[in-house]
Amino acid sequence: MPYGYEQAKALTFSEYGEPPSVLSLHGHSISPPHGDKMTLRFLASPINPADINQIQGVYPSKPTFTTDLGTPNPIAVAGNEGVAEIIALGDKVKSAGYKKGDWVFMKGPGFGTWRTHASATVDQVVKLEDSMREGITALQAGTVSINPCTAYRMITDFTTLQPGEWFIQNGANSGVGRAAIQLGKKWGLKSINVIRSRDDKAAEDKLKDDLKALGADIVITDAELQAQGIRDQAKEWTNGGREKIRLALNCVNGKAATAMAKLLSSSAHFVTYGAMSKQPLIISASMLIFKDIHFHGFWVSRWAEKNPEDKIKTVSDVLDMTRSGEFKDTPFDQIKWDYETKGDELIAKVKDTLEGYREGKGVFVFGKT
Amino acid sequence: MPYGYEQAKALTFSEYGEPPSVLSLHGHSISPPHGDKMTLRFLASPINPADINQIQGVYPSKPTFTTDLGTPNPIAVAGNEGVAEIIALGDKVKSAGYKKGDWVFMKGPGFGTWRTHASATVDQVVKLEDSMREGITALQAGTVSINPCTAYRMITDFTTLQPGEWFIQNGANSGVGRAAIQLGKKWGLKSINVIRSRDDKAAEDKLKDDLKALGADIVITDAELQAQGIRDQAKEWTNGGREKIRLALNCVNGKAATAMAKLLSSSAHFVTYGAMSKQPLIISASMLIFKDIHFHGFWVSRWAEKNPEDKIKTVSDVLDMTRSGEFKDTPFDQIKWDYETKGDELIAKVKDTLEGYREGKGVFVFGKT
Repeated sequence: MPYGYEQAKALTFSEYGEPPSVLSLHGHSISPPHGDKMTLRFLASPINPADINQIQGVYPSKPTFTTDLGTPNPIAVAGNEGVAEIIALGDKVKSAGYKKGDWVFMKGPGFGTWRTHASATVDQVVKLEDSMREGITALQAGTVSINPCTAYRMITDFTTLQPGEWFIQNGANSGVGRAAIQLGKKWGLKSINVIRSRDDKAAEDKLKDDLKALGADIVITDAELQAQGIRDQAKEWTNGGREKIRLALNCVNGKAATAMAKLLSSSAHFVTYGAMSKQPLIISASMLIFKDIHFHGFWVSRWAEKNPEDKIKTVSDVLDMTRSGEFKDTPFDQIKWDYETKGDELIAKVKDTLEGYREGKGVFVFGKT
Repeated sequence: MPYGYEQAKALTFSEYGEPPSVLSLHGHSISPPHGDKMTLRFLASPINPADINQIQGVYPSKPTFTTDLGTPNPIAVAGNEGVAEIIALGDKVKSAGYKKGDWVFMKGPGFGTWRTHASATVDQVVKLEDSMREGITALQAGTVSINPCTAYRMITDFTTLQPGEWFIQNGANSGVGRAAIQLGKKWGLKSINVIRSRDDKAAEDKLKDDLKALGADIVITDAELQAQGIRDQAKEWTNGGREKIRLALNCVNGKAATAMAKLLSSSAHFVTYGAMSKQPLIISASMLIFKDIHFHGFWVSRWAEKNPEDKIKTVSDVLDMTRSGEFKDTPFDQIKWDYETKGDELIAKVKDTLEGYREGKGVFVFGKT
């Protein structure tokens, strides 16, 4: 390669479909940056459920299809979240306050983060200030923008919970769920956490213990949530019902979500951010009219686009908690991606994540080239 | 009867069930009022769907079962809304500012308004000030607290609609629906109104014309709402989608409600106040997450209990509009109730209303005894 050129690889697709069928590893080169251009080297890029939906074509935020990566037909780079390091930059980027070695996030979705390198402009990135970056690993920085932000905003933006009050959530062992447990704990809230029942009871018990160690007050399975007597149990947990359950966080939908709504106190808020069961939400009239439950949705991409300042503040708060040890990483499945890594290997990992994303989470971690 | 005693009749029930089976006309006498007691003569008391549900035992606000009306076993008087005239009063009622001839509403639900006379205390009633009563008929005063208040609060309490913006509602020919059309019109809002399809197309067309005469911009049937191409039509009505549909009022539930939600603009509010289809509401995750629709319920009894001052203000506003001719009565089926009226006749009218309440509305209108 000529001096200053970067040899890049990216997981790309030219049409929507199931990731194993439509993804391929595409190599291209990036010329030295001038003007308002910078060259990024990615450090860590997670595989989120929304990334999969985007490849399938069922996500409202569309990726950018382009021929800029040297293909005859337009292709898009997969992935929406990640952290990258600036390895080269044009004059205008320098005068905008950036320097070599700075870490940046993508400003919005659709940029494509499953790639070793990228060319970007100043308006496409947000700088991670040195004070925020201190003591933070690339893995932590690369996974802070979506799941922890989702949990943080859902707990704070729909109602004002007082210390000692409760929230209830399903998918409690997901990235968002684990973040919600820890944020709730820090803010003096109590939580009822619903996980999927497992055939392996020892694994189920271990997961319950793990979530309790993070700060979960109560952990139950969805079978336990839907069993008779759950209302009496909830009453017991909440001091005879005197402590209110004023918020529900839902990423499952279907019957399990309705069962969760039934445990809420009057005039509570129910926020949906996912639908792992692929079922709709079914709400009785009396739950709306007489119990006065308010049903909302939360989409972190829309929120971040509307509230760029709040996003930086939220990320900064979570990174502060990470630094002080109050916020623990989700157990990640780190997927090494070096220059030599084969496309088939990477795509197989995407497929694994696709099938098992309720359990853990895959993150591409890039080696130095 | 001794002087000062009133001979009263009331539609009562001693156990929950279908109105024709459990209702009976009960006669009793009311002794002259002393202290904080007053004797009321009812003028007009409507039959609302909630009254029926209360008799069936499926309404969360329960009636008062009592032996005060001279029965060996406790009975409750049906009905929740109405206007009554004070015909006699104790000293403490006088010193609280009331006089003979004053008109009063019931302060909350559960008092029982399907009766010719009642004994009440000051804390059970709200006085209709003379200025509010001027130019208003008993029928108008007796039917203002529930349907017009429900429409008024649903349009104003969930989002701030700007003049020129749209709302959409089903059950548009109901008491609430007709009130919403007229209030919306006065406030500069536009409305899409959904009515049930009728076999008699001439009657359907007449109803559409009636609602348009009240101020409805668009009137469609539920079949038209659920037909293909409705989105394109809605776009046409709303100036290519530039005028937003930011509120939906729903008393139907089921598929027809979901179809209505699909016409809403992003971040709109969907308020449920009834479920005539007896179906739940079915909401997709994407409608919550990506379209950001907020789903609420509205129950006028809870609202009135929490906001007594606002209730008086709301009633006063509607009566002002009635006086000025901007607010027309719902077409009522007036049911004459004299001292001689037989119980069977009255109960047959309740049954009619029960079966046909989507079409019109029954109101007991009391003759002088």
